[in-house]
Amino acid sequence: MTLGKQILYLSQADVVNTGLKMAEIVDAVEQCFVELGHGRVEMPPKPGIHPGQGGNNFIHAMPASIPAMKSAGVKWVSGYPGNQAKGLPYITGLLILNDTETGIPIAVMDCAWITAMRTGAASAISAKYLARPESSTIGILACGVQGHTNLEAMNVLFPLKKVKAFDTNAAQAKKLAEFAKNLDLGVEIVADPKRAVTGCDIVVTSGPILKIPHATIQPGWMDEGTFASLVDFDSYFSRESLKEADKWTTDHIGQYTYYKKVGGYFEDCPEIDAELGELVTGKKKGRENRKQKTFAANLGLAMDDMAVAPLIYRQAIEKNIGTWLPL
Amino acid sequence: MTLGKQILYLSQADVVNTGLKMAEIVDAVEQCFVELGHGRVEMPPKPGIHPGQGGNNFIHAMPASIPAMKSAGVKWVSGYPGNQAKGLPYITGLLILNDTETGIPIAVMDCAWITAMRTGAASAISAKYLARPESSTIGILACGVQGHTNLEAMNVLFPLKKVKAFDTNAAQAKKLAEFAKNLDLGVEIVADPKRAVTGCDIVVTSGPILKIPHATIQPGWMDEGTFASLVDFDSYFSRESLKEADKWTTDHIGQYTYYKKVGGYFEDCPEIDAELGELVTGKKKGRENRKQKTFAANLGLAMDDMAVAPLIYRQAIEKNIGTWLPL
Repeated sequence: MTLGKQILYLSQADVVNTGLKMAEIVDAVEQCFVELGHGRVEMPPKPGIHPGQGGNNFIHAMPASIPAMKSAGVKWVSGYPGNQAKGLPYITGLLILNDTETGIPIAVMDCAWITAMRTGAASAISAKYLARPESSTIGILACGVQGHTNLEAMNVLFPLKKVKAFDTNAAQAKKLAEFAKNLDLGVEIVADPKRAVTGCDIVVTSGPILKIPHATIQPGWMDEGTFASLVDFDSYFSRESLKEADKWTTDHIGQYTYYKKVGGYFEDCPEIDAELGELVTGKKKGRENRKQKTFAANLGLAMDDMAVAPLIYRQAIEKNIGTWLPL
Repeated sequence: MTLGKQILYLSQADVVNTGLKMAEIVDAVEQCFVELGHGRVEMPPKPGIHPGQGGNNFIHAMPASIPAMKSAGVKWVSGYPGNQAKGLPYITGLLILNDTETGIPIAVMDCAWITAMRTGAASAISAKYLARPESSTIGILACGVQGHTNLEAMNVLFPLKKVKAFDTNAAQAKKLAEFAKNLDLGVEIVADPKRAVTGCDIVVTSGPILKIPHATIQPGWMDEGTFASLVDFDSYFSRESLKEADKWTTDHIGQYTYYKKVGGYFEDCPEIDAELGELVTGKKKGRENRKQKTFAANLGLAMDDMAVAPLIYRQAIEKNIGTWLPL
């Protein structure tokens, strides 16, 4: 490619076909949290627009610059709740990657796969510092895309043996079961959500993010020593059950505070004990004993995407994937 | 095209080849100012990142939604001052256009031409409300890209006869002279910047935006009844000469205030009399008599781009221009 003359376009299929491994994504996402923890990431607040009817649609610009990873760009991602009824995906969007030395765009790629994978990776990195290292049983509540990628990422860092899968949609649970079997894990599809919490070392709540939490999980369900990653923010856990938290963390305090104030999420949740960047850089302690109940309420950051995008780009070039276009 | 299956990519050459006319761009940009004036545009603050060395590099995300124009999208535009020494353009970037009903991206296009054209168009719309309608002589100080598009746009709305062109670079001035001749205008290349101000009905300062104004234009140079569009912000006019302003306007008070506070621009400039959207909707008066010296300090807005992008998209489809890509 000639800088400033051509860019590489990668469709969703192209991105998947690069074959980038979850283990590499976990590494890259951890590296960006090291950078964030040392204050070396530029990540301004993400502005959004809300076109169309209903008021729940959004399109967010998520820019980030990670100098140490020579990565700069923006993810432009939309979420339209009404799409699913039209047979269209809820989340769609593109990511633009720029050359850091000249600012010139070098690639445009679909962002759906990257978003799913990096979200799982961030959960796993939280778990690395907050779950017990020998964690082997994982409960997944809601078995959609995020259920899959969270399981895949946890399986990179932990000696998982068994998955307890809960979903109100049986077909979804079955799909996750197939996926888990391909990872050589035992699976139990459970009809009672409690059974995907009690007896688990790691719990992932990966349902939709709701303004009004359904608060399914009750006090006493989560065992001592368990770690929970709340991919659905505070939708699954009842307020009472969250009072049991010994450690409450997030990937970004600034954005967490913003969501709390402006978005109305995380009402009456525990006080933040640590940001993930502080755990990764050793500035704050993760799990301190075998009994703590630990939580990660990660929001998903622009830098997560920008940590992964250059890997996709390089792999695509190496494997001759994608379409070169004139600038 | 099939929504959610394909997007249209338009290179810089593709965008130019759509043949979209400046008159259409002026109309579209005026329409978005009507929408803004009525409070019907969503345009959040534009966040930026600043990769690379030196601290003057920027890449800005500029999102906007204009429901009445069925337009939503983002411009991701970079400015790297060091690029020119490398033979690369200072400004580069892409614009993503989304379907407003589903949020799905429908097009990615180069943004350089659109940026240049819509900036000229916004100047001309300010002039429509602030210059004398019979304005026939225009002074252009700095004859680069913005000198060209500002002249072209003013020529759409005014009975221009003569251009006085000033540039410290003679080749640039000559280029603008050629361009003006093609528009059937008389041209005088002037060696003294004063001669591109005095005796002109409209003045455009279209040099680089500088943190420390060179303040070339002195009190008394600008005639009574003249309108000036400050594409270079406050770089060309001395503070003393700005004291002569009878009307000081901008395209967006919020962004103007931000630039003033955070960017350090527009120091000691007059108080804002009106926003362009207020002029266009008749909420405030433009020029009130033949003697007023009127000014527009337009900053360039995301909605300007989003007003133009759908026209480019539709024209490209009509003319079968661009590359269809799988999403």
